[in-house]
Amino acid sequence: MHVQVPNEPIARLSSAWRRCVGTGRMDLSLRRGHSEALELASREIGFEMIRGHGMLSDAMAVHRAYEWQGERRVQHTFVHLDEVVDRYLAAGVRPFLELGFMPADLASGDQTVFWWKGNITPPRSYAEWAELVRATLRHLVDRYGLEEVRTWPIEVWNEPNLDIFWKDADQAEYLRLYEVTARAVKDVDAGLQVGGPVLSPGADEWWAPFAEYVTSRDVPVDFVSRHAYTSGPAQPVPFGVYQDLRPPQDLLEQFAAPARHLEGTALAGLPVHISEFNTSYRPDNPVHDTAYNAAYLAPVLTAGGEHVESFAYWTLSDVFEELGVAPGLFHGGFGLLTHGLLRKPTYHLYAFMAQAGPHVLARGEDHLVTRHDDGRVTVLAWQPVDGSPTTASDGHRVQLSVPVAADGDGRAFALRRRVNEHDGNAWSAWRGMGRPGAPSHAQRDALELASRPAVEHATHAVSAGRVVLDLHLARHEVTLVELDAVRDQTPPWTDDTRIPGYADGAAR
Amino acid sequence: MHVQVPNEPIARLSSAWRRCVGTGRMDLSLRRGHSEALELASREIGFEMIRGHGMLSDAMAVHRAYEWQGERRVQHTFVHLDEVVDRYLAAGVRPFLELGFMPADLASGDQTVFWWKGNITPPRSYAEWAELVRATLRHLVDRYGLEEVRTWPIEVWNEPNLDIFWKDADQAEYLRLYEVTARAVKDVDAGLQVGGPVLSPGADEWWAPFAEYVTSRDVPVDFVSRHAYTSGPAQPVPFGVYQDLRPPQDLLEQFAAPARHLEGTALAGLPVHISEFNTSYRPDNPVHDTAYNAAYLAPVLTAGGEHVESFAYWTLSDVFEELGVAPGLFHGGFGLLTHGLLRKPTYHLYAFMAQAGPHVLARGEDHLVTRHDDGRVTVLAWQPVDGSPTTASDGHRVQLSVPVAADGDGRAFALRRRVNEHDGNAWSAWRGMGRPGAPSHAQRDALELASRPAVEHATHAVSAGRVVLDLHLARHEVTLVELDAVRDQTPPWTDDTRIPGYADGAAR
Amino acid sequence: MHVQVPNEPIARLSSAWRRCVGTGRMDLSLRRGHSEALELASREIGFEMIRGHGMLSDAMAVHRAYEWQGERRVQHTFVHLDEVVDRYLAAGVRPFLELGFMPADLASGDQTVFWWKGNITPPRSYAEWAELVRATLRHLVDRYGLEEVRTWPIEVWNEPNLDIFWKDADQAEYLRLYEVTARAVKDVDAGLQVGGPVLSPGADEWWAPFAEYVTSRDVPVDFVSRHAYTSGPAQPVPFGVYQDLRPPQDLLEQFAAPARHLEGTALAGLPVHISEFNTSYRPDNPVHDTAYNAAYLAPVLTAGGEHVESFAYWTLSDVFEELGVAPGLFHGGFGLLTHGLLRKPTYHLYAFMAQAGPHVLARGEDHLVTRHDDGRVTVLAWQPVDGSPTTASDGHRVQLSVPVAADGDGRAFALRRRVNEHDGNAWSAWRGMGRPGAPSHAQRDALELASRPAVEHATHAVSAGRVVLDLHLARHEVTLVELDAVRDQTPPWTDDTRIPGYADGAAR
Amino acid sequence: MHVQVPNEPIARLSSAWRRCVGTGRMDLSLRRGHSEALELASREIGFEMIRGHGMLSDAMAVHRAYEWQGERRVQHTFVHLDEVVDRYLAAGVRPFLELGFMPADLASGDQTVFWWKGNITPPRSYAEWAELVRATLRHLVDRYGLEEVRTWPIEVWNEPNLDIFWKDADQAEYLRLYEVTARAVKDVDAGLQVGGPVLSPGADEWWAPFAEYVTSRDVPVDFVSRHAYTSGPAQPVPFGVYQDLRPPQDLLEQFAAPARHLEGTALAGLPVHISEFNTSYRPDNPVHDTAYNAAYLAPVLTAGGEHVESFAYWTLSDVFEELGVAPGLFHGGFGLLTHGLLRKPTYHLYAFMAQAGPHVLARGEDHLVTRHDDGRVTVLAWQPVDGSPTTASDGHRVQLSVPVAADGDGRAFALRRRVNEHDGNAWSAWRGMGRPGAPSHAQRDALELASRPAVEHATHAVSAGRVVLDLHLARHEVTLVELDAVRDQTPPWTDDTRIPGYADGAAR
Repeated sequence: MHVQVPNEPIARLSSAWRRCVGTGRMDLSLRRGHSEALELASREIGFEMIRGHGMLSDAMAVHRAYEWQGERRVQHTFVHLDEVVDRYLAAGVRPFLELGFMPADLASGDQTVFWWKGNITPPRSYAEWAELVRATLRHLVDRYGLEEVRTWPIEVWNEPNLDIFWKDADQAEYLRLYEVTARAVKDVDAGLQVGGPVLSPGADEWWAPFAEYVTSRDVPVDFVSRHAYTSGPAQPVPFGVYQDLRPPQDLLEQFAAPARHLEGTALAGLPVHISEFNTSYRPDNPVHDTAYNAAYLAPVLTAGGEHVESFAYWTLSDVFEELGVAPGLFHGGFGLLTHGLLRKPTYHLYAFMAQAGPHVLARGEDHLVTRHDDGRVTVLAWQPVDGSPTTASDGHRVQLSVPVAADGDGRAFALRRRVNEHDGNAWSAWRGMGRPGAPSHAQRDALELASRPAVEHATHAVSAGRVVLDLHLARHEVTLVELDAVRDQTPPWTDDTRIPGYADGAAR
Repeated sequence: MHVQVPNEPIARLSSAWRRCVGTGRMDLSLRRGHSEALELASREIGFEMIRGHGMLSDAMAVHRAYEWQGERRVQHTFVHLDEVVDRYLAAGVRPFLELGFMPADLASGDQTVFWWKGNITPPRSYAEWAELVRATLRHLVDRYGLEEVRTWPIEVWNEPNLDIFWKDADQAEYLRLYEVTARAVKDVDAGLQVGGPVLSPGADEWWAPFAEYVTSRDVPVDFVSRHAYTSGPAQPVPFGVYQDLRPPQDLLEQFAAPARHLEGTALAGLPVHISEFNTSYRPDNPVHDTAYNAAYLAPVLTAGGEHVESFAYWTLSDVFEELGVAPGLFHGGFGLLTHGLLRKPTYHLYAFMAQAGPHVLARGEDHLVTRHDDGRVTVLAWQPVDGSPTTASDGHRVQLSVPVAADGDGRAFALRRRVNEHDGNAWSAWRGMGRPGAPSHAQRDALELASRPAVEHATHAVSAGRVVLDLHLARHEVTLVELDAVRDQTPPWTDDTRIPGYADGAAR
Repeated sequence: MHVQVPNEPIARLSSAWRRCVGTGRMDLSLRRGHSEALELASREIGFEMIRGHGMLSDAMAVHRAYEWQGERRVQHTFVHLDEVVDRYLAAGVRPFLELGFMPADLASGDQTVFWWKGNITPPRSYAEWAELVRATLRHLVDRYGLEEVRTWPIEVWNEPNLDIFWKDADQAEYLRLYEVTARAVKDVDAGLQVGGPVLSPGADEWWAPFAEYVTSRDVPVDFVSRHAYTSGPAQPVPFGVYQDLRPPQDLLEQFAAPARHLEGTALAGLPVHISEFNTSYRPDNPVHDTAYNAAYLAPVLTAGGEHVESFAYWTLSDVFEELGVAPGLFHGGFGLLTHGLLRKPTYHLYAFMAQAGPHVLARGEDHLVTRHDDGRVTVLAWQPVDGSPTTASDGHRVQLSVPVAADGDGRAFALRRRVNEHDGNAWSAWRGMGRPGAPSHAQRDALELASRPAVEHATHAVSAGRVVLDLHLARHEVTLVELDAVRDQTPPWTDDTRIPGYADGAAR
Repeated sequence: MHVQVPNEPIARLSSAWRRCVGTGRMDLSLRRGHSEALELASREIGFEMIRGHGMLSDAMAVHRAYEWQGERRVQHTFVHLDEVVDRYLAAGVRPFLELGFMPADLASGDQTVFWWKGNITPPRSYAEWAELVRATLRHLVDRYGLEEVRTWPIEVWNEPNLDIFWKDADQAEYLRLYEVTARAVKDVDAGLQVGGPVLSPGADEWWAPFAEYVTSRDVPVDFVSRHAYTSGPAQPVPFGVYQDLRPPQDLLEQFAAPARHLEGTALAGLPVHISEFNTSYRPDNPVHDTAYNAAYLAPVLTAGGEHVESFAYWTLSDVFEELGVAPGLFHGGFGLLTHGLLRKPTYHLYAFMAQAGPHVLARGEDHLVTRHDDGRVTVLAWQPVDGSPTTASDGHRVQLSVPVAADGDGRAFALRRRVNEHDGNAWSAWRGMGRPGAPSHAQRDALELASRPAVEHATHAVSAGRVVLDLHLARHEVTLVELDAVRDQTPPWTDDTRIPGYADGAAR
């Protein structure tokens, strides 16, 4: 009846789950609310890279045409780009570069995407675009050093298979952009890593032509990338949408798809980055704020590293603004963190994962058991959910026999953290408050307290080196248990019953 | 059956409970662990003053004799005193000065108190002592300004009625010391506040002679002070003691005693400072680490302001060392905070009090209800305990009808924080770990999580402007509930059942 | 020959000079670079208020129309406004509110100003505008308290006399806007302070009609405001302009103008705020980066308080963007601080002013002498310049006889800080580096060092209580001298000649 | 006439100069003033390790005997040791362990050293001592990991050749202590590094017996260590001494001595640590506060790495207390930093060294020239001094031809920082203030400004890839010049003469 967790590791835990996280448009990284979010998540989760849109858009001002003595000239400005990258690196996180969108001065058309109007048209001069790419990368190499910049993946554009992101979703034009860009990247240094085609879900028909094009023309490709979401059509209301979800397994299948589609091509075996993923692809779907989202993604985080080099949660923070400024505190934003740095349930899932040890002892549909080098064991458990509108049953039970020490008996100390519909759930408290759009300072403080996972501690008997855990999970719960064999240091004279009020023993 | 909390305030909440806190010997305030404790407590509790021993002891080096050209001279050094006071003020907390103990160079004998050997003998020259007092206060006035220093109470010595603190507990000698010192203080500025006799419990026979002496000789007295503890005789074990306690009411009686004893004297009506209080007067009694200590003190904190100007918990931090360096993390120290800044249950009691509003709506033997200017209501509730070894019954129930809004109906949001034998209780977790003397970093992190009060949130129906609270308290629980009437901002299109997984409504 | 500084104060120093500072559009205050600039300047200068454009523009999203069930509705969102004001107050600085520009959803036209496209047209519904004003102020009062918000001046629009800021510079339309807005403000609370007409320089003909309109219709006015600049026509080059300046006295005359123009009207005697001032009104004129700018403004800062309640340097930081993103580090921006927080010479002028004492002993065309309560004396001195292209002579000499103590002789310690074409001048170092647009980290560190004022220290003989200062100022220098009478504590045994290497005495 | 600095490196710069720094007794590391000093120096200088006395003394309480059931027992307490090491590592600095002095409970006598009374007698039980060593190291290995602790040198005792540090300076007893200790260290882990004999200057006769003893008995030795000072006999005054110094070359000879004395023994070739060095060995010699001290040590810092693995300046901070609490701000303390974190001239020497590049281009008696990987060149220059009482001549001139770029011409930007009798010299300003023992806050701020090195910047012509530097040094100056070839980015339209006030060109 209990899952018997093996004594010996079955695998090392891949860190693909925290290799990258997404952000909104790059100039939002200049915001204090954003950089504090990054510092917090770097400390508590340990993301290694961060990726966002708009590095070459006008708000970053990297490319700017002007006239001098009757002649068109271009100025490359790095005031913002340097500040953004300095802040990333100061937080201990590297940039995952996405080259796009088109500077207005270089654009061939005026189609834009998002509230902030990123231009999505091809360059009117590919030579000038190539020069922009080279100048930008040369600057970054000068500033941060070649060794450093070689560790940053460089993606060409974003979801060119969608006409909202690339004019007419013109595949031939994208392949041309890819080629020009990849060659420009390699002009700067052959060791820089370039990749594409950054597909949205549902565009697997692009893999073959992409592989064929780059192979036949010997265009550099160091990695491939795509995005993954599982939400259905949007059902709009003001300032928001509702959507159904496909099961979490669908996300893992999307992760696995590039390798499958590239089998047999020259691109087989290249690293795959899922440079965006989430449940819903909408920044205004309340599911992002829920414990359900965390329970849904738990099996994805624990298994995703089997398939890909990285999968980047889209996004770190509600400081985002693709549809405009957030209409209020909770608004279904992508962020792991709200404005004002409240941790959402999915943030906790990531923070729980960050407590895992390097040695995987067991992984199942509702649990991941790991061990640290010093012998501590962590159990991550969750209630499996399938994305359907139907409510999951209340609660779920996970029963495990966990090895915590060599054969002996004794006791083990267990610390449990819980996130569910009540615990670690500021959204749920916020609904109780009447969904204030602009909470008062007192409400904000209450929400911060409500956002903390519940903590329980207990000791368990160890028998033959094992503890039997019988975890009762509340609805949509994600739980983390840390287990450590007790090395008892209680002095012989200790007698808690002699403390006032503890005549029957203190431990109850 | 429910206590009917009145609609209108019955009193303003005195801030006597946080007017002052104690610390160990003053040079320990140079420690980083101590100053971070003070910053934390200042932010979360808001203590206004801090008082400690040893301001004139050799480790502060304020007074130092030397020879020059065959002649004895004295150097007054303020390197440490300035640093201590600068750090206090930087943390937003003022010093409550205690003049003592005796510099070795000025002492008439070599009797000392504590591991750190504070000299407890009278000065061999009262003139030199008076000059020390004047020089020190003049320096403080020069450095911090007269207006500031006038707000600092200045106590003469510590517990002179005990021969461990004052040679032979010689009353006549103390009265002389008091007189010389008080006059020296007033030499510097008539507006400085001086007081005594800083009695330990059980010395009420000193009040009459003190009053008579200062009255008959017209010696300045701006306030009187004493200490209060309720523990019985110490039953020693290595590195610790056990003791019985008298009921909490006994503490309040000790608070009230000076006024009673001074009735009819010229000192009647002077401000009274309880410049130290706690359950046990021993820095190695485990009761200080328990939830029991918090439950025991709750009625004292809520009622003490009726009797006195201030009552200072002895002490802020386990960085203390009267008996030597702490033998391990939890060791029965006085501190609200451990080494490494773990919050003990009594710390939480103080932090809960700091959430109270200025308007007292009700006060009872197990509750204090207050209101903020913006209408929020706080309920502090606790399980009454009496100090006897017998264990309190498990749990306690507090039932209140609380006014949260004008007459109307609707809902109120409640946030509850709990501290008891499990929640907000690092000591209890530490016992489960096997009482590690030097916890590992992972254990320390677990203890920090275990030290956080449990948080619950809920909405309650409001009927005729009132919420009925039925609080079930666990053993030795101190609980804080914050109540706020809901102003519902939910948009009409909101339908949580359309979120995946919430088909039956999210709120459960 | 020396100016004889009086022994007794001739005035108290007004703090009008630091009562307010300007910023760019309000959402830039969300930037970390901006909020760190504000924290720095608050600490080192002590600005009391900050004012910027765009509080109601779309990037702040305070007003947003949407449709629900076929009907137009408006949502007021305070996510950004709250964050901005929270950050201001956390830095110890209050907002000076400017109501504008027009939300797109409420605008009657599509004319905009600036790169960031602030809409400058009248509301298409004055009722909806009034509701926006009321809702915003009600929210602020709820969040920050009435007592607090009553201290924030509330300006109606910005420079309506210019057609770039107000469609057609339509005076009648502005008067209508003013009236509707002022009444809406007072609907919220009669104690809120409202004012206008926020004129640009050269629009004095607006005063009479403004006074007449509000008087005749009994429209509330608590203060009046205008702007002041002294630059001539712009001579453009790419990414910049050159301009001539009128003399600094011209700024003071602009400060004085409103009172002069309102003499005899019902508005006579109202507080006057110069809610923007600077030399050039262009954010791309290199003069802002120079020591010349500081020397030019020194007489304005020291005398401006004679005329007005406040005069706000436009602006705190180069994080600004009216013409777009800065093209490089130094670019003639308004900021006292550059991107990356380099202090410009004019920043130092402000920081020097912040060292002044409350008692003015002397003020002249090249100096301001003040005294602190503790007796320290500060001398601010500068080379007078007149704004003309002709270079000022190299150097300037200020000779003062300064009272530093009662009659006696002795010595005084003097600390001098200097800012000129070399010292405290990162711009000058940056030119020497070849004007790097995006300085490397090593260059940035060098610029930071170069931006620090030179420091000199010396002792001066005191004769009859006075020190004679003979200050040689380098070109465009602003200098601060702090003087303090020496209280010698050198012990009698001190003999520096016994230190190795100092046989001839150490002090040389 | 000019020194011709070679184009190509002659060596890599050893980091021996910053591998270690000394501190006072270990429990002072608990002080906030100390840990902030370490954080500052770690950031600005980059010390790799820190070593201090008293790790096993009673104030650390690692060893404590008690009785239980009539039997003597020992408790090992790591509360303080853990906090000290945690703070070191958090500051990025590792401990260099010194095992000593003797816990009172384990001591065979009551002789002590220092004001704080470190017991200097042998253990009364070598078995108990060995157990103390093992328990302590096992705890450190458990807490910090074996890999980490293996990088910490472990010294046995301190200066056993002096009877103030080791009872009777008994060599045989020390050899016994060394043996027992070294074996106890290796009991824990063979990879831990142990060494001795930590000799004071003038004890070279100990090398042979030490080598013979450990060789003949096969006692583990991983490194050897000694101390180095160059001061003569102390000439006392109250609270201080004066002393003569031998020339700096004498320090280098002391560094070289162990290797010379161990030549031909089995210990030849072992790493040598100079675990303490300074000019004077007294913590109350004013020379430590002077620019002279910095000039004197400059040739030692630049050359010391030729001889040894590390040489540790004794000490980081004036928070020290071997003779008691500091009698005032400047008191001749060892610290690079004063109480309150003023940087002394020798601190600047270290900070200047920290700016050097890895490639040494030239080293002479008054200069060290290095190059960074990015091509920047640093020149450290100083006035040579010899330690004699005679004053050095005023000023010194260093003339160098420095390669800054490939052959071409152009310009180079130079930033110079200067420390001498006026610049970067808070001590000199403090004397001018009348040597205040407890400076006011305003004085402290002035001293902080006076402590900053003067900064100059200039551009130099580059000819054939070289700049000619002609450095005029003031008395006792240590100067740092950073040179970088200018890559001119000035736009063609730039014309500074069009800025008001700069008609003759701005650069003057």
